Amino acid sequence: MFPLAVPERTAKPRDRGLTHIIDKGLGCHAITDLIDTAKNYIDIVKFGWGTGPLTGGLDAKIELLQKNGLKICFGGTFFEYAYVNGLLDKYTGWLEERGIDLIELSDGSIHLSLEEKLSLVERYAKRFTVLSEVGSKDVNHVVAPYKWVREITRTLEAGAYKIITEGRESGTTGVFRGSGEIRTGLIEEILQDLSVDKFIFEAPQKSQQVWFIKQFGPNVNLGNIAASDVISLETLRLGLRSDTFSEFHPNSVDVTDAE
Amino acid sequence: MFPLAVPERTAKPRDRGLTHIIDKGLGCHAITDLIDTAKNYIDIVKFGWGTGPLTGGLDAKIELLQKNGLKICFGGTFFEYAYVNGLLDKYTGWLEERGIDLIELSDGSIHLSLEEKLSLVERYAKRFTVLSEVGSKDVNHVVAPYKWVREITRTLEAGAYKIITEGRESGTTGVFRGSGEIRTGLIEEILQDLSVDKFIFEAPQKSQQVWFIKQFGPNVNLGNIAASDVISLETLRLGLRSDTFSEFHPNSVDVTDAE
Amino acid sequence: MFPLAVPERTAKPRDRGLTHIIDKGLGCHAITDLIDTAKNYIDIVKFGWGTGPLTGGLDAKIELLQKNGLKICFGGTFFEYAYVNGLLDKYTGWLEERGIDLIELSDGSIHLSLEEKLSLVERYAKRFTVLSEVGSKDVNHVVAPYKWVREITRTLEAGAYKIITEGRESGTTGVFRGSGEIRTGLIEEILQDLSVDKFIFEAPQKSQQVWFIKQFGPNVNLGNIAASDVISLETLRLGLRSDTFSEFHPNSVDVTDAE
Repeated sequence: MFPLAVPERTAKPRDRGLTHIIDKGLGCHAITDLIDTAKNYIDIVKFGWGTGPLTGGLDAKIELLQKNGLKICFGGTFFEYAYVNGLLDKYTGWLEERGIDLIELSDGSIHLSLEEKLSLVERYAKRFTVLSEVGSKDVNHVVAPYKWVREITRTLEAGAYKIITEGRESGTTGVFRGSGEIRTGLIEEILQDLSVDKFIFEAPQKSQQVWFIKQFGPNVNLGNIAASDVISLETLRLGLRSDTFSEFHPNSVDVTDAE
Repeated sequence: MFPLAVPERTAKPRDRGLTHIIDKGLGCHAITDLIDTAKNYIDIVKFGWGTGPLTGGLDAKIELLQKNGLKICFGGTFFEYAYVNGLLDKYTGWLEERGIDLIELSDGSIHLSLEEKLSLVERYAKRFTVLSEVGSKDVNHVVAPYKWVREITRTLEAGAYKIITEGRESGTTGVFRGSGEIRTGLIEEILQDLSVDKFIFEAPQKSQQVWFIKQFGPNVNLGNIAASDVISLETLRLGLRSDTFSEFHPNSVDVTDAE
Repeated sequence: MFPLAVPERTAKPRDRGLTHIIDKGLGCHAITDLIDTAKNYIDIVKFGWGTGPLTGGLDAKIELLQKNGLKICFGGTFFEYAYVNGLLDKYTGWLEERGIDLIELSDGSIHLSLEEKLSLVERYAKRFTVLSEVGSKDVNHVVAPYKWVREITRTLEAGAYKIITEGRESGTTGVFRGSGEIRTGLIEEILQDLSVDKFIFEAPQKSQQVWFIKQFGPNVNLGNIAASDVISLETLRLGLRSDTFSEFHPNSVDVTDAE
């Protein structure tokens, strides 16, 4: 490897600086490529929404990822599906059989009162590492900042490991506007009393990744990264792409992309 | 596999509920991944426009797909190319040598009177299963609904198996506006007297897939699906993604994405 | 292969008609697929910006590409990184150890006077084939045409093999507006006194590729092509996709896409 002089990056197993990718059904050749080229840059592989249970060869894929030190998480929609169909015990048992210790709890598609959600977080935090998602999947449903703060604080108290802020595969909802633009005021308000390290920000678009890195440094936790963008994201974290080059190199050019 | 309780889906070989994907030159590792993860969800693999004859290792790829039960079709532009260059006999012979029994007839790039097109459909319907495309590739060329209906009715009478409605790889023409929005009035008019099962709707964008599934159910025929979106589309058909979750789960949240 | 009657295309090793692709970390299965399906259509593989040194298994990947006749080039940002960190000798030695004879010089993220840039071109032209990039990465930084012309002319005089016009991975800067639209007046002015063959135009978007092919013919040099678009680009060059079909087939339909 070329001897790079780059900003300090945490190493695996990390607690901060996490890269959480979204997979929508990659096969084993693609997964092998991902491991060979980028395994040190990936912490969690999420099988997006309900794609996991539909993916052929799933168990071989899980094994391949696990033996290479990549943690697996099924998408929140699969949890919600299990919840509304009375299959939660089957779901959690099924995860445990596969040695999966992460679970994402969300309510993007179902109605769940805060109390119900907190009680689920509490219950599963005893057996799993819980990722709990906040924010609506619906671009038209904007939640007031004080409600975000209240829900997040109580969810962490209930035992969640990290909070995932909703962005979808597209990066057009939750902490983003429909255009993909970041609701910066909302994020400021949320982080008034809470550590940025408690969050995984879903940020599938490059401009969003750039914003979070400029704001919170190379070791911000970012989620819903496309598999094909993992190395690109790592270059952004390390100032090896023009968009963040000037963050780490004084007297260089500040670049704004049109994306 | 996790025991899912999902809407009824047709099984292969299907006559309805078809997923028709567009390939623009995948190699054998990617095709193997696709087969391993999703072969039950794919009915037809189209080698888009003229990419097929330029793809290295084509015959090995064809064999790999065929022995795994995936039907192959070359893009309409290749047919049109053969037509204007006086190579139709060579083209159809070449397909038959490879055991390909699907043929797409289209006139997106050439001038063909309706009578000529119908006579080609009639001629090739004797040797092939004919997919006949309607709708212009040109975003500025909008055809009146009554002309769509007349052309479609006569094409089916001439022996076409299914009608493909043009959408391109991008989903920005034919039954869509340049923005990707669906021309719903046009589709309503077309389906007044014709069964939805006679159509394969090219619908490369997620929002388009969602619309067709909400309108016509899980077993609507959809085309020009990106290889990387096959499992995602299957989750939409089965209510395992938030966009269609509420279709199949009463009392859940109706989600609108910005895409 | 099907016997096509297509426009004249140059063969490898080419001096014009180059296709230069941008890779952001593909693994060896994907690279093998690319070679199997499209190696004759690819001249240069660029490891975009700083992705190269971060890609696991890099040396095996370089070897695989080289033994199949694909030239390798690291992105300009890596050069700039080496420049500002005083690592240029290490960088160029590292390239030579790997048998890489192409080098891209750019100043998208650093401040370099024209004189400094020319002296670097001159220095490295003795040991490498130099690709020199012009145009800003910043969408808001618009350079006057006469400055482009002056810089390009002098860079060629200093020994650069080709000039790369900046477009980024997105195609939204340099010779393009933020919308991806082409600055046609700028290109006209640049080509008043300079041969089109001295340029590699970064043109990642299909509409941009179509424009250059219509303007300058099938053998225009195009860069920053996504690996997944290589065969598609070749169909555009050869009139096997509707967007350029009418260029090579009189009496066919002129198609405008919405993209």
